[in-house]
This record gives sequence, structure tokens and C-alpha cells, in this order.
Amino acid sequence: MTSAQRGPAGPPEPSGARVRSVRRLTTRKHRDADGQFLAEGRQAVREALTYGEVVALWVDGDLADRHADLLALADEHAVPVYGVGARLIAGLSDTVTPQGIVAQVVTPTATLDAVVAAGPQLVLVCAQIRDPGNLGAVVRVADAFGAQAVVCTRGSVEWTNPKVVRASVGSVFHLPIVTGVGLDEVTGALRNAGVQVLAADGGGADLQDYAARGLLTRPTAWVMGNEAWGLPVEDAALADAVVGVPIWGRAESLNLATAAAVCLWSTASAQRSAG
Amino acid sequence: MTSAQRGPAGPPEPSGARVRSVRRLTTRKHRDADGQFLAEGRQAVREALTYGEVVALWVDGDLADRHADLLALADEHAVPVYGVGARLIAGLSDTVTPQGIVAQVVTPTATLDAVVAAGPQLVLVCAQIRDPGNLGAVVRVADAFGAQAVVCTRGSVEWTNPKVVRASVGSVFHLPIVTGVGLDEVTGALRNAGVQVLAADGGGADLQDYAARGLLTRPTAWVMGNEAWGLPVEDAALADAVVGVPIWGRAESLNLATAAAVCLWSTASAQRSAG
Repeated sequence: MTSAQRGPAGPPEPSGARVRSVRRLTTRKHRDADGQFLAEGRQAVREALTYGEVVALWVDGDLADRHADLLALADEHAVPVYGVGARLIAGLSDTVTPQGIVAQVVTPTATLDAVVAAGPQLVLVCAQIRDPGNLGAVVRVADAFGAQAVVCTRGSVEWTNPKVVRASVGSVFHLPIVTGVGLDEVTGALRNAGVQVLAADGGGADLQDYAARGLLTRPTAWVMGNEAWGLPVEDAALADAVVGVPIWGRAESLNLATAAAVCLWSTASAQRSAG
Repeated sequence: MTSAQRGPAGPPEPSGARVRSVRRLTTRKHRDADGQFLAEGRQAVREALTYGEVVALWVDGDLADRHADLLALADEHAVPVYGVGARLIAGLSDTVTPQGIVAQVVTPTATLDAVVAAGPQLVLVCAQIRDPGNLGAVVRVADAFGAQAVVCTRGSVEWTNPKVVRASVGSVFHLPIVTGVGLDEVTGALRNAGVQVLAADGGGADLQDYAARGLLTRPTAWVMGNEAWGLPVEDAALADAVVGVPIWGRAESLNLATAAAVCLWSTASAQRSAG
């Protein structure tokens, strides 16, 4: 669809079937069945249009002018745009103050085989992370430090959940996210590909010492455990080493996203320094 | 008060005046006027009893057994314990599922003069951080990496806000938090004390390069700006240098807590490596 087809009254109204196809995506069951999800708000929409496969863009008709740049971007990518009422947009939205724009996106498929075949330098493995805000935050961190992929083991929160998409600030569109695999399968495949597997745990070896000994320059995958119970012993045993961010003050621990940031930063930084 | 004074029926009931003195603390106005605040939940209560000055411990009488260890700790510190109804505790609580225990704590006073006089190696300066969850998270990070103090400039969210206390996971009791000062005053005092002042901003010098050149081993204060608008140019100009965490992927930025974690980790780590 081009701007010309929209006519003077703004984006066209969708058919009832189209509306039903997007409304379904507010539940996980239908996201899984249809292989699509929703990206809400200006930043997520921009990243979806730039890096994702967008089925349709839904905009509050009264706010179309405010989002003219995104509607133009949709045109460039030949993505249909539908102008609808604020109520429909609010129904698609997970936030209290929706921005009036939602992208209906095809869920990309990413496989462990493809990730491993690409010879990754840095991978983040989320072992049963359950909180959507935490998963989104660590995907953003992995993206910031140039990780080639994120892997979510079975039992992790679904990454197409709107809270994950929002917390990632668009990063879910920037790198492949593999799901539905067991931790043993992930660690085995990565190790076979020459990637060392480090489990992040406060009780492990000292990260600073590990870095100083030059042990972070190799291709590395970091396994981050669940926010409440961490990594069970049998899961940590699947890693080549257990390494933790040392606590030099009185705090008991770091939260998941800050621990992931320090582990991934230290590794990416060491790899870059080593050339 | 000792266990013996409590009698066989558990913790005694408080007077009406006592109840009013604690109920007031749910508003900022009264926290400021009374110089007291509330620490809710088992972990915050434990840290308050261990590191803070607790006026009284308030417990849901029906849950006193579950918190027997904390009641014993209160006894050790000669802190009075009051057994009250679940409704009163819920009224003191900011969470949906209160744990049934709240400490009424004296707000410690921390001054910039005292912080500077102690010759700090690592300080976190929060320049108008407005989100309580963010402030709590960065206080936790500062605590984890052994910072000697946190300074909140005028216009920052009040750190005795229950959301800050909760997000800090007890760290607000672990290090002095200076408030109500201007950024110019803070940077001037730190610089006079031989502390270099670095403003964290993605547009600044590359943190990795800065670390590689040995520039992080000196006593250092990091200034973190507001989560929405960052550091205005005139504020950044008050620092000795503007330094940013490089983004190696497609993410636009890091969030405040993860950026603070990487800056403080890199500095504490460099200082420790340098001996």
C-alpha cells in the first residue's frame, strides 16, 4: 500500500477479519498458533519495520499525524497501515498510556543449529528466566554488547510477551532468539562449536581474576539462571566453569540485568582488546 | 524490650499514638518532618536492624512465628516490637503481597562534607534520577562494587520512598546517601578532594579505551543523569570528562542500572588491579 491509496481521510479501515487476526495476538495461545506477535509504541514499531517482518501497522486514526514518519517507513517497506479507534489500539496494548501505534509482526524463527553454524563469539543463554521485564532487559544488554544470539531454555518466559518486547526497547528485533531447547542440548552444541560455556553464579570463580588471566577472550556463552532460585547444581555442572561477579560491598547480590551487563561487557571488552 | 516482657501472647499491642507515629510515614511530607521512614519485608528489615537505627518493629501478630529470627534480632538491638493486625501492616506496605513485617527507621543524615573528608575512592552521583526503581537499583550497584557513598542532587526522587528502599534490596542501609545538594557543589567538593568526576553519557569518550589507558585507577565519582533526558550539556560540563559505555550491537542505549553497573564495575576493578 502506498500513501496515494490511503486517500485524503488517512489510513483505511480494516475488515472485521483483519481486526480479529490482530486481536487474537494478545494471548500467548494465539501468538504461538499464528506465529505472530505485537510490538507496541514508537521505538518498537520502528525497529520492527526496520529489522522485522511486519504484517500490518495499526494506528489510532486521530494520532496518525503524530506518527507520520513511521507510516512513511511502513510505506517504504510495503506494509499495510490501518487507521482504527483509540479503543481498539488500547485493547492491543499492554501499557496504561498507549502511544497509539502497534505493529503486527511475524515471529522470526531462530534455530540452535543456525546460531552454532555461524561461529558465534558471544551468546547469552537464559536458563528459565521467568520475569518478562528481566528477559527484555538482558536481551537489550546482549544486543548492546554485540552478542550474536540469545537462547531461552524450555521453561523461560515467552519472549513475544508484550512486557518482554517493551523491556527490550526494540532489541528483540536485533538478534536471533532461540527457544524451546534444553540446557544440556544448548551447552553441548556450543561446546562442540568451540564456544566455552560459563555459568554466572555469585558462588563461582572471581570474574575479575578470570578476565585478568585472559580466559574471556575465547568465544564464550554465558548462562544466566532464574532470578529467584539461580542455577541448580545440575545445570551449573553443564558449564565449563562457574564464574561470578565479585561483590566488594555489603550487597548480597546483583540483579539479573546488572550481573548480565557486567559478564557480557567484560567478555566483549576482552575479546575486542585481544583483537 | 526483651522476649520476657512480651508475655505468652506474643508481641504487645501498641498505643494509639504509636500507631499514628508509624502510619504518618507513608507520606513523604511526614517522612521529611519526622526524619523517619519505613523498611518493609524480611530482607530490608534485617538490614535495617543490622545497619540502621530502628525505632520500632511492626509485625502482623498472626505471622510473628514466621519472623521469629527477626524478632530475636530486634531483641538483640533492644528494639521494641509491636504485634498488630494484618490490616495495619498492609496500610504501611507499598506491595501487593506484604510479608507482614515493617521496620520504622530513623533516616540517617549523611553530609557531603563527611563523604569528602573520608577520602572516597568511588562515589556514585545521581543527577535528578526520578524513577524510584532506578534509584534503588543503582544504589544496589554502588553498594555491590564497594562505593563509599551515593549523592542525589536536588530534584532526584526521595530515597526513603518505599519503592526505592525495596528496589535497593537493603543497600540503602549499607552506605551514606547524601541529598539536597546542587551538582556544581558536589563536583566542586569532590574535585577539591582529588576525586576525578566522570559524567556517564553514551556520546562521550569510549569507556574501554579510558580503562585501557589506565584512567580509571584514580579516585573516581560517576555522575549518572536522568533516565529520560540524560545529562544536560551544562551539567556534563561540570565533570572532568564525559565517558560512555560503547554500544557494539544495534541497541540504542543501555538502561540506567546496567550502564551504572558497567561504569562502577570497570572503575572498581581497575582500582583493585592497580592495588
